[in-house]
Amino acid sequence: MSREGEAELPFDPADRIEAGLTFIGHIRSPWGPGTAPRNLRAARESGEGARIELRDGYAAGLAGLEVGRAIQVLYWVDRGVRNLIVQNPRHADGAKGTFALRSPVRPNPIALGTVVITSLDRDTGVIGIDATDAWDGTPVLDIKPWIDTVDVPPGWRP
Amino acid sequence: MSREGEAELPFDPADRIEAGLTFIGHIRSPWGPGTAPRNLRAARESGEGARIELRDGYAAGLAGLEVGRAIQVLYWVDRGVRNLIVQNPRHADGAKGTFALRSPVRPNPIALGTVVITSLDRDTGVIGIDATDAWDGTPVLDIKPWIDTVDVPPGWRP
Repeated sequence: MSREGEAELPFDPADRIEAGLTFIGHIRSPWGPGTAPRNLRAARESGEGARIELRDGYAAGLAGLEVGRAIQVLYWVDRGVRNLIVQNPRHADGAKGTFALRSPVRPNPIALGTVVITSLDRDTGVIGIDATDAWDGTPVLDIKPWIDTVDVPPGWRP
Repeated sequence: MSREGEAELPFDPADRIEAGLTFIGHIRSPWGPGTAPRNLRAARESGEGARIELRDGYAAGLAGLEVGRAIQVLYWVDRGVRNLIVQNPRHADGAKGTFALRSPVRPNPIALGTVVITSLDRDTGVIGIDATDAWDGTPVLDIKPWIDTVDVPPGWRP
């Protein structure tokens, strides 16, 4: 199964669970296995939007967000493999450590997308977003406001 | 206990666990309850660095990272309260939804810090970082490379 240069942990992180997550909603997107864009930039270039559907009770948490604001969406991308610590993904330039990659295969399979709110229904808890690389039905863990003074590394210039 | 304008979910997210996390390491910082900076910007202004100590096995995941690179650190900030969906934090300008705040109190208490690597020991798995707002001993969930083409919202300019 493993590709050249890949390495596994000597244990399975899934056997060492220390904290628990709940799903606050799901992503609705045009994507599935085999059709999803490689990353968020490619998703944006596709021109396809997406939406987040929050579960009952969570819509009240949207107060203070607005259309046009950037948010960080944390989502759960469990592919059933959590023990790969060096990976050689297709399209990558050689093997790299998991912490140097944005691959969904990681000890805690949490993905992060910084996206822009395109619509907001505070009654139903449906949030339109400009793009996603997530498969349709992907569980959502959290939404945070993107804040330039903390989310851009010091000294970075476009 | 609750402050003006705050609202709770009609259930406790901690009673609805659907996925599990493992701790890949811990943050070592000068901070604890009452002394931690308000946010990462304030932490950076303090001039205090910090470090991440990875647990055994995970250091191999650092291959491909370098001193000077920006990384996203995901860490677990469970304060024992996960059901507050509208919050009125000290120092905030009124009550806001949890998803419009970076408060550690949220359905899934995952925090995100974008920091710069100041030292890197690939043998011991110790990573120096330029700043953190996390308490000493905070469990670490993930490290990802910060990538400008996906982590800066479209159209943003300094």
